[in-house]
Amino acid sequence: MSGKTNPGRFFEDYRLGEVIAHAVPRPLSGGDRALSHALYPARGALYSSDAFAQACGLPASPIDDLAVFHTVFGKTVPDISLNAVANLGYAEGRWLAPAYPGASLTSTSEVIGLKENSNGRSGVVWVRTTGRDETGRAVLEYVRWVMVRKRNVDAPAPETQIPDLAPVVPAEQLVVPEGLDFTGYQFALAGEPHRWGDYAVGEQIDHVDAVTIEEAEHMMATRLWQNTAKVHFDATAREDGRRLIYGGHVISLARALSFNGLANAQMIVALNGGAHANPCFAGSTVRAWSEVLEKAETEAPGVGALRLRLVATTGAPFELKGADGRYLPDVLLDLDDWALVPI
Amino acid sequence: MSGKTNPGRFFEDYRLGEVIAHAVPRPLSGGDRALSHALYPARGALYSSDAFAQACGLPASPIDDLAVFHTVFGKTVPDISLNAVANLGYAEGRWLAPAYPGASLTSTSEVIGLKENSNGRSGVVWVRTTGRDETGRAVLEYVRWVMVRKRNVDAPAPETQIPDLAPVVPAEQLVVPEGLDFTGYQFALAGEPHRWGDYAVGEQIDHVDAVTIEEAEHMMATRLWQNTAKVHFDATAREDGRRLIYGGHVISLARALSFNGLANAQMIVALNGGAHANPCFAGSTVRAWSEVLEKAETEAPGVGALRLRLVATTGAPFELKGADGRYLPDVLLDLDDWALVPI
Amino acid sequence: MSGKTNPGRFFEDYRLGEVIAHAVPRPLSGGDRALSHALYPARGALYSSDAFAQACGLPASPIDDLAVFHTVFGKTVPDISLNAVANLGYAEGRWLAPAYPGASLTSTSEVIGLKENSNGRSGVVWVRTTGRDETGRAVLEYVRWVMVRKRNVDAPAPETQIPDLAPVVPAEQLVVPEGLDFTGYQFALAGEPHRWGDYAVGEQIDHVDAVTIEEAEHMMATRLWQNTAKVHFDATAREDGRRLIYGGHVISLARALSFNGLANAQMIVALNGGAHANPCFAGSTVRAWSEVLEKAETEAPGVGALRLRLVATTGAPFELKGADGRYLPDVLLDLDDWALVPI
Repeated sequence: MSGKTNPGRFFEDYRLGEVIAHAVPRPLSGGDRALSHALYPARGALYSSDAFAQACGLPASPIDDLAVFHTVFGKTVPDISLNAVANLGYAEGRWLAPAYPGASLTSTSEVIGLKENSNGRSGVVWVRTTGRDETGRAVLEYVRWVMVRKRNVDAPAPETQIPDLAPVVPAEQLVVPEGLDFTGYQFALAGEPHRWGDYAVGEQIDHVDAVTIEEAEHMMATRLWQNTAKVHFDATAREDGRRLIYGGHVISLARALSFNGLANAQMIVALNGGAHANPCFAGSTVRAWSEVLEKAETEAPGVGALRLRLVATTGAPFELKGADGRYLPDVLLDLDDWALVPI
Repeated sequence: MSGKTNPGRFFEDYRLGEVIAHAVPRPLSGGDRALSHALYPARGALYSSDAFAQACGLPASPIDDLAVFHTVFGKTVPDISLNAVANLGYAEGRWLAPAYPGASLTSTSEVIGLKENSNGRSGVVWVRTTGRDETGRAVLEYVRWVMVRKRNVDAPAPETQIPDLAPVVPAEQLVVPEGLDFTGYQFALAGEPHRWGDYAVGEQIDHVDAVTIEEAEHMMATRLWQNTAKVHFDATAREDGRRLIYGGHVISLARALSFNGLANAQMIVALNGGAHANPCFAGSTVRAWSEVLEKAETEAPGVGALRLRLVATTGAPFELKGADGRYLPDVLLDLDDWALVPI
Repeated sequence: MSGKTNPGRFFEDYRLGEVIAHAVPRPLSGGDRALSHALYPARGALYSSDAFAQACGLPASPIDDLAVFHTVFGKTVPDISLNAVANLGYAEGRWLAPAYPGASLTSTSEVIGLKENSNGRSGVVWVRTTGRDETGRAVLEYVRWVMVRKRNVDAPAPETQIPDLAPVVPAEQLVVPEGLDFTGYQFALAGEPHRWGDYAVGEQIDHVDAVTIEEAEHMMATRLWQNTAKVHFDATAREDGRRLIYGGHVISLARALSFNGLANAQMIVALNGGAHANPCFAGSTVRAWSEVLEKAETEAPGVGALRLRLVATTGAPFELKGADGRYLPDVLLDLDDWALVPI
C-alpha cells in the first residue's frame, strides 16, 4: 500500500515561526455567490447587488466576507486541523480588503504559539493565517488555535510559547474598504431603516427567523470552501454515526438570519473572537440573536462600526451561559465581530 | 429587547393605492441558471443555450421566466405575505421583456384591493406587483391576492374595494419578446418535433416523469429567490413539524416536468391564474399533466401561443376536481398560463 | 390523451450505422463549476484556478473532464437508455480537447453494434458517442453499450454485429491538450509532492476519506447533466422505493476522493473501461482506492500518463472480486482510465 495520502500534521510536526503555504488556489465567482444565496437566507444588499455596492463607493458587489473567511480557512484544514481534537478559538481577525468575483484566494499560516498539554498526548497550536488574492494582496488575517493530537506520545515537548492576543480588535485598527461611503445609503433597498445611531450598547435583538438544517446543505457549503475534515462528510467517522456540522456553516447561517434586525450591518471587518459552544447536527432548528457590545466611529464618510455578539442557538434568545459560567447546551455559537453600518 | 426586526404588515396596515417598494435588489447570473438546472429537471433549449436563443432572434439565452417570477415575488414576501394566512390567487400576469444574466431585479407592489373578512380577524389584500430591471424597465407584472391577519381585531375595516380582474389575459395583450422569430426553429436541438399546429384545444398530455422532493432542494430553491416566509425553513413553525414547500417550487418543478410533451412551449408570457390546491411536503413524488385550453396566433414570425393548464399532482394524471367541485386531495397546483410555441 | 411524450427507443428501433443527434445544447459555465465544488470534494488545482492552469500552458482552467463526460452522456439518455435494462460497459473513451467555461456542448451517437439476446425480449446496443462544442470541434468520444428492451417481442432480430473494441486505449493514442506543459508544475499549490516517477505499476492507494451520500445531492448532480432517467428521481419507479444513484455521480465522487494520494493526476484523458458493479443508494458511505495499472510517457513537456484503476466501494479498500471472479457486493465502481501527471 502506498504512503501517498496525507495523514495530516501532528502536534510535534509544528515549529514556532514556521510558515505553511496551503494548497489549491480557489477562485470565487458569481456561481459561488448564487450557491451562497441558495444555502443561506442571505439578503444583505451590498453582497447582492452591484448597483447598491457602487452607490456605496465600491467598484462592485464584493464576495461575502464570510465566504472569504471560509475559503481561506478551508485551505488550512489539511495542514492545521486534520488531526485536531478541538477548534479552540479565534482572535485578531481583520478583513483587509474586499475580494471581488474572479479573485483566486490562497492561504498561508505562521505558527505563532505552541503549548503541550499536561497529559502529553496533545498540544495547542496557534497560527496566524493570511488570505491573499491572486495579486498577493492580503485580504484577511486571523489567529486561530486548535488542540492537535501527538503522533508519538514520547516526542519531546516544544518550548511553550503562548501568543499575546488582543481580546478585541481596537476600533482604530479596523480597515474600512477604500472608497466606502454610506452618505448616500439606500435604506429602502437595503430593507430596514435602522442607522448606527439607532443602536445602543447593550441592546439585544432577537432575529426571529429559524432554519432547520439538512445534511445535504451543510455538506455542500463545507465542500464549497474545500474544507475536507472528514467528520463533516463521513457518517462512520464518529461513534454516534452523526456528521458534525462545520462551525463555519453555523456562523454563516447565524449571520444570514441576523438580517432581520441588522440588515444594515453590511460588512464584517473584524472577528474579535468566537466559540463553537456546542456541536451542531442536521435536524437542528437554528435561531440567532445579537447584542450590541460597543460602538465606534470611522474615518469613512457616513460609516460607523458596531461591535456585535452574534449567538446561534437551538433554544431561546438571550440565554447564553449557566450559573457555572459555561455555555448552555442549546448554544451553538458565540461570535464577537465588528460590522460597518450607515450612520 | 430591540424592536428592530420586521413583524410584517397586518391587514390594517395596507392603504388602497399605496405603492410599496420592496427591498434588496438581486442580480440573476449564470450561477443562478446552473442552480436552476440542478434543482429542476429543466431542459428548455431556449433557456439553456445562447446559440439556440440567438437562432430564435434573441440576443442571448434569457433568465428562465419562472426564475424572474420567483425573484420578483420573493422580494414581496416581507411586505405582503409575512402574516398571510393563505395565498389566494394570481391574475393578469404578463412577462413584459426577457431578463438576461446580469439583470438586477427590483419589485414594487401597488395595493389595488382590500376587503375585510366578515369575522373581523383578517382580510384580503390585492396587489399588482411590477418587477423591473436595473434600468427601470418593467419585465413582469402580475396581480396576487392574499388573506392577511389583523394585528388588532378592533381596527376599523377599510372601505371594501375588489378589483375587476380579467379571468384570462387576452391573446392580443401577450407581449412577444422583441425580435423573437421561430421560423428557423431547430426542432432537433429542442428535443421534440411537435409544433403549435400539432396541439389541439382539449388535448391532455401526461408528462410521465416524476420527482420525489427533498427538504434540502426546496429550501435551496426558495432561498435562491430570497423568499423568507418561515414556514418553508423552520420545522418548528407548524404544529405538525413539517416544512411547507413554497408553491413556486411546485410551479417550477411542474414546468420542468412538462418538457416531456411540451418541449417547444419555450417561453411563458402570461399567468392567467393559479391555485395552490393542496400543501406539498418533502417526500412527495410529484407528477405533472397539461391541457391545451386555447390557441392563438401572434404577430411574431413563426410564433404561436398555447394557453395551457399545468397541473402538479401526487396522484394520477387528468384528475382535478371531485364531484363537489373541489380539488382532489392529490392535486397540488392548477396553473393557467400562455406559452409561445413554434408554428 | 396525447402521444407527444417521449417513450424512448426500444431495441428494434436502432439501425446499424444510424447517427442520432441528441437534444438540448447545454453551456457549461462558472456556475456549473461552483456546483461541482459543492457536490463533490473536488480539489484538483488545474480545475480550480485559472492561474494554475495558465502556469501549465492552458489558456484558462478547463471544465472538469467528468463534467464534460456527464454533460455529453446526459444528452444521450432520452435516445439511448430510457428503456435500458442495464448499462453494460464503456470503451475507447478519449477526451479530444479541453472545454472551457462558456462552451455549449452537443452530442451525437452512432449505432456501431447490435445483438439481440437469446430470450428475444431485449438486445444489446453499442453506440459511439461524440461530444462537440459550439464550434463543432469534438471534445470527447466514447463507446458505451446498453441492454435495451424490445417494444414488440415479435419484432425480427437485426443482423448481429459486435464491434471490435480496444481493451485499453493505447498510450500513443492519448490526446494531450495542446500547449500542456508540466515543467513548471507548482506542486505546493497542487497539494501533494508526488510525481509520475514516484508511482509504481501495481501500487495501490487508499484514498482514506469517505462521503455519506444524500438524496438531494445525487439528484442535483444528475439534473445538472440533464440526465432524465426516472429511476434517479422518482422513488416510486422501483419496487423497493429507492432511488438508484446515477453511476456517473459515483464516478465523480470517487474521482474527487482520489485527490488524497493522486492530487497530481490532473487530467483524465482516456476511459478504457468501467463497470458499475453494484447499485448505489442514498445513505451509503462511499470510499475510494486506486491501483496503478500502467505508466507511459507523452510528447508533451513534463507530462507523463498513469493508467489507473479507480474503485468506489462501501467496504474495505483493495478488495474487488470474490473467488468466483464476480465483484464483491460492496464494490460500486471499477473504472479504468488514463490520467496526466507531472513527471
